[in-house]
Amino acid sequence: MARAAFPSPYLDSGLDSAILPAEGGRIVFTTDSFVVRPLFFPGGDIGRLAVCGTVNDLAVAGARPRFLSCSLILEEGLPLDDLGRVLESMGKAAAEAGVEIVTGDTKAVEKGRGDGLYINTAGLGFAPEGLDLSGSGIEEGDALLVSGTLGDHAMTILSSREELGFRSSLKSDCAPLGGLVGELLGSGARVRFLRDLTRGGLAAALNELADLRGVSLEIEEEALPVKEEVRALSEILGIDLPSMANEGKLLAVVRSEDADLALAAMRAHAYGKDAALVGRVAAPPAFGKAAPPPGSARVRIKTLAGSLRILPRPSGEKLPRIC
Amino acid sequence: MARAAFPSPYLDSGLDSAILPAEGGRIVFTTDSFVVRPLFFPGGDIGRLAVCGTVNDLAVAGARPRFLSCSLILEEGLPLDDLGRVLESMGKAAAEAGVEIVTGDTKAVEKGRGDGLYINTAGLGFAPEGLDLSGSGIEEGDALLVSGTLGDHAMTILSSREELGFRSSLKSDCAPLGGLVGELLGSGARVRFLRDLTRGGLAAALNELADLRGVSLEIEEEALPVKEEVRALSEILGIDLPSMANEGKLLAVVRSEDADLALAAMRAHAYGKDAALVGRVAAPPAFGKAAPPPGSARVRIKTLAGSLRILPRPSGEKLPRIC
Repeated sequence: MARAAFPSPYLDSGLDSAILPAEGGRIVFTTDSFVVRPLFFPGGDIGRLAVCGTVNDLAVAGARPRFLSCSLILEEGLPLDDLGRVLESMGKAAAEAGVEIVTGDTKAVEKGRGDGLYINTAGLGFAPEGLDLSGSGIEEGDALLVSGTLGDHAMTILSSREELGFRSSLKSDCAPLGGLVGELLGSGARVRFLRDLTRGGLAAALNELADLRGVSLEIEEEALPVKEEVRALSEILGIDLPSMANEGKLLAVVRSEDADLALAAMRAHAYGKDAALVGRVAAPPAFGKAAPPPGSARVRIKTLAGSLRILPRPSGEKLPRIC
Repeated sequence: MARAAFPSPYLDSGLDSAILPAEGGRIVFTTDSFVVRPLFFPGGDIGRLAVCGTVNDLAVAGARPRFLSCSLILEEGLPLDDLGRVLESMGKAAAEAGVEIVTGDTKAVEKGRGDGLYINTAGLGFAPEGLDLSGSGIEEGDALLVSGTLGDHAMTILSSREELGFRSSLKSDCAPLGGLVGELLGSGARVRFLRDLTRGGLAAALNELADLRGVSLEIEEEALPVKEEVRALSEILGIDLPSMANEGKLLAVVRSEDADLALAAMRAHAYGKDAALVGRVAAPPAFGKAAPPPGSARVRIKTLAGSLRILPRPSGEKLPRIC
């Protein structure tokens, strides 16, 4: 069944491993397991998610996504039709993303030892020598851009869970971002850092960057792109918008002078039409003569009311099994 | 915790992907998920298994195993000590195998939606141009070698499952085979095909090769290396020795004249000391003027009693969750 859904000569070799042509530049290698509940949701399914999630990890590392693996853990009793739909969806997403699924594996577990289907995808891509998107060149004043509306995936999954008992017209934003990243990097804008905004959302990405590079970051709540329905639901449920998971959005840190160029490049792409400038790399907060306490206060948000507050790293799993 | 167990500068980059130096030759990429029950067993654990299984897939493709990913699915309630032991074991196995775990991911699922811990490892290795171990050059008379005793892993797992109510002194053969393959390929023996003997054991590997290359294969039951305790248990349980899973054994098909050279190279290695010649690539069975029925009768075993019978491809999972 997987062979039909994933057309690749590398998969058809009859070997357990994919033997791939070497390309120039550096190899980028990543992995993610997907345990999203429910398996099917508006705008996607676990298969599309598994392709897009890994493709996006490659893309934000500056790589052209190229090859994926696919490993399935099936729970006894999973309808074969559901498996077929997921594999078909993976094939379509891979074609859209321009990647080939080249190697795979299937395991089965007893009823009650899984939840229908878990998927792992690992990915390989190739990045040009010298491209550094790790944030090492970040400086005060750099612009913080997001590629579109926040929270669509999180709110879609939440409202898909039957026990919550409400319905919405929302769709997950689940999408492969290799093309968007290509446009952004090709625009000539000097990009310092990229990160896809999955679990923990923008808040997690900003806190990771702040810790990694020891910089202070400041965003404005008013500038965050958000669908009205998502905003309303997040207020009802008491979930902070910047902490909500996305599956087709990224954070880009670019040189201040290049912000407009970068926004234009993103907005020209279907997956970046709502791109927005949401903040800046800021001056470090004042702590008198003392060093700032580790990990604290580096990421701040100017609220709608005009006050400046710390935007903490989301702790624990606010929404288990969102991806 | 994973950072402590897996010392790699690539893992410490703070990025979601591993950016790796490109090396010469072809890239080999593979994946496997591991759902073995129980998590700990004599001779290994799910972590060692997850490293060795993927390393061995790379090795039998002719690659030098180099980089692994590690993705964990934790069931709520898994003791943190158990997780620590597994990660430590993975780190040790990776060091033994000469590979680095360079990227990873962790997901958590609710109690009753997993079984303690599932692990996916994907792997990257580099193979020299021109090395072909896919069996394309196989011809009548080629020697079929196995690298050691069969069935140790399967019988260890079975006797570790409490419900079976018996104890044995067996240990899993779980081991990384990159070094052994290096010795074999370096010996000068002309190797046509390699395959590690995991689920479905030697019977599965021989049937896959027969189907892949349209050749007939014949082995002798008397020649199969086996520990006495494994033989006794397999008879009690009615499990066919050639179908039993291994996690540190391989099949090598070599030119007839090079069989002794290849055996000597394998036997000089700790993981190949019981290597044995077990059969030959045979003349196709006679079907009169008709073509042989597809997939049938291509693999035969000469039993201890001297009769020749078909060795079928193991169907279904005789031993679920063996790896």
